[in-house]
Amino acid sequence: MSSSPSQALIGPSFEGDYSPGEDFSLEAGGVLRSPTLHYAIYGKPNAAGDNVIFVTHALSGSARIADWWPRLFADGGLLQSGDHCVIGINVLGSCYGSTGPGSIDPLTGRRYGPDFPLVTIGDMVRLQARLLEKLKIRRLELVMGASIGGMQALELAVQFPGFVRQVVSIGAAPLGAMGLGLNHLQRQMIQLDPAWDGGHYLPDQQPRRGLALARALAVCTYKSSELFEHRFARRPDRSGEDPSAGGRFDVAGYLDYQGEQFVERFDANSYLALTRAMDLFDPVRGYPSAGAAFSRIQAEVMLVGISSDWLFPAAEVASLAANMVKAGVRCQYRELVSSHGHDAFLAEPDDLARLVRPFLGEDLQC
Amino acid sequence: MSSSPSQALIGPSFEGDYSPGEDFSLEAGGVLRSPTLHYAIYGKPNAAGDNVIFVTHALSGSARIADWWPRLFADGGLLQSGDHCVIGINVLGSCYGSTGPGSIDPLTGRRYGPDFPLVTIGDMVRLQARLLEKLKIRRLELVMGASIGGMQALELAVQFPGFVRQVVSIGAAPLGAMGLGLNHLQRQMIQLDPAWDGGHYLPDQQPRRGLALARALAVCTYKSSELFEHRFARRPDRSGEDPSAGGRFDVAGYLDYQGEQFVERFDANSYLALTRAMDLFDPVRGYPSAGAAFSRIQAEVMLVGISSDWLFPAAEVASLAANMVKAGVRCQYRELVSSHGHDAFLAEPDDLARLVRPFLGEDLQC
Repeated sequence: MSSSPSQALIGPSFEGDYSPGEDFSLEAGGVLRSPTLHYAIYGKPNAAGDNVIFVTHALSGSARIADWWPRLFADGGLLQSGDHCVIGINVLGSCYGSTGPGSIDPLTGRRYGPDFPLVTIGDMVRLQARLLEKLKIRRLELVMGASIGGMQALELAVQFPGFVRQVVSIGAAPLGAMGLGLNHLQRQMIQLDPAWDGGHYLPDQQPRRGLALARALAVCTYKSSELFEHRFARRPDRSGEDPSAGGRFDVAGYLDYQGEQFVERFDANSYLALTRAMDLFDPVRGYPSAGAAFSRIQAEVMLVGISSDWLFPAAEVASLAANMVKAGVRCQYRELVSSHGHDAFLAEPDDLARLVRPFLGEDLQC
Repeated sequence: MSSSPSQALIGPSFEGDYSPGEDFSLEAGGVLRSPTLHYAIYGKPNAAGDNVIFVTHALSGSARIADWWPRLFADGGLLQSGDHCVIGINVLGSCYGSTGPGSIDPLTGRRYGPDFPLVTIGDMVRLQARLLEKLKIRRLELVMGASIGGMQALELAVQFPGFVRQVVSIGAAPLGAMGLGLNHLQRQMIQLDPAWDGGHYLPDQQPRRGLALARALAVCTYKSSELFEHRFARRPDRSGEDPSAGGRFDVAGYLDYQGEQFVERFDANSYLALTRAMDLFDPVRGYPSAGAAFSRIQAEVMLVGISSDWLFPAAEVASLAANMVKAGVRCQYRELVSSHGHDAFLAEPDDLARLVRPFLGEDLQC
């Protein structure tokens, strides 16, 4: 193993839990009683407090950024230098340490399960801001994330304008009708599974088949037709099944495998909660106009669209950027040209780094 | 009601059943014992026998063409004139009168159900050709269809070269990896429904929720992001549900409705059978090369791609046309520019008629 700073960062220097110790009111009207945020810190804040970076995670991510985005810290990665203090916070509703449907409701002593209240991206970042305050972080040099992570970055910039110097949001915009429809169908798949049990399943008896199927459909939305064509075309499943005798095509075997892997590491009720939060993301909601919302932003913003992303089409991201510019935001739009679809933010780390690096402040340029 | 010829054609002049009266061997190795084809005839063959048109149907269609493609016969429609003899034949595997999974297996006296053998588009057209021969039809002036209907038209042209004068195939090509993957997921949704019962459900107790969900996903593939954006955007469900309080978005309500309607008129096992046939369509299979398959074609062919079709992308249809031209086929490619996706063949009848009419023989020009 190399002793380069990038390798030294693979494990967090600190991992812990935060709770406000009181009720946390939610945008949609519910309340979480003394919720927990699980967080991880890579490196340390410097004396000037100007090296803190918050990397926000997507649907299936966690506070442990290097676990799901290792290339960020690797040689040539955007955060290769060891001089940063990089924070990851598991979102509300998830199943990686923060309060979510699998957590015990202090009021009832039972798991929330299907009674977990509706949480929004706005709720997530409001509680994150309280944790960051508790950690005595006065300012974030950068908030960066993709997908639901990109939504959090934008929401932070709108809700806490003085707190964020730079924002990089990748493949994120309010979800369009096709995405809303496909998310809706995914939730129904989970609820169709006989093991669903109205959401009251035991943790080791979750609706695996429904969740696997939902994930498989999500994987279709995270990739692109072009990529699938290149990888699978009409080839038979690599294990040797014969489609003309009722066996699977290769793409079907791949999707099944992706689903099976996912159910080992994710909770069905969390999946429902986070796709609902994704659906509801709209940084303009609650403001009289897009201008009113975006003109609050003080951060420099870079929005990255992905050319083959059909869940969050590049045109939608570009249009969001145009609206920000119109509202006076120092906002740049860049396009990541890739056949990898929405997942390109993980699949094309070098191209992403080339796009984003010029935008980052001098101290962030590796 | 008008007494124009187009209106007079709305009901078939004859509707009947055909059976070869013997075993019918299938491409994948199975056998159907004395299967039935249900067919409908609009108009009559003329003395010269040169007015017969076969309109092939898509997944959820039937022999009664005017029921699902009424605009074909309406004023301005492609078959407006009453001088044609138009034939529709329900495909093997369907649930509209021809032998399918819901039929009784003469060998066992029970419904085939999940034991219905794998049928291909090739099987469908071989039995159709026998029916047409029985009807003393020596030649088809035109075979026209879209989606699975377009597949049948092409397969007929390859398998029965002297029998077809003109072919119009719309939105049809061998399915790509994304389409194969999404069809696979649809089949799994049906099989996830507790009412599935291994496919042995009673006809009035079919897996409604799974089938509705499969159809809803299929509807996403039949439409386009652009159309959904235009129709639904991020609006709440029109019945008044509030997404920010856990209710549905409009697109979700629409998809649910489409699914609910479909289960009233379609059988889950037929859905499995026909999506498998769609998956397996490849007119080149069984021939040493594309050239060897396509050079058999004697018909004039028009392939129509639909600009916003992401299930059968226009580029795939165009590429199929180019391969046919290379093999010496008199093949034209036209693109139907529409935001309606795969369904544009039904949704844009006037534009489709404008594209196709110049191609049709003089006697077919209305």
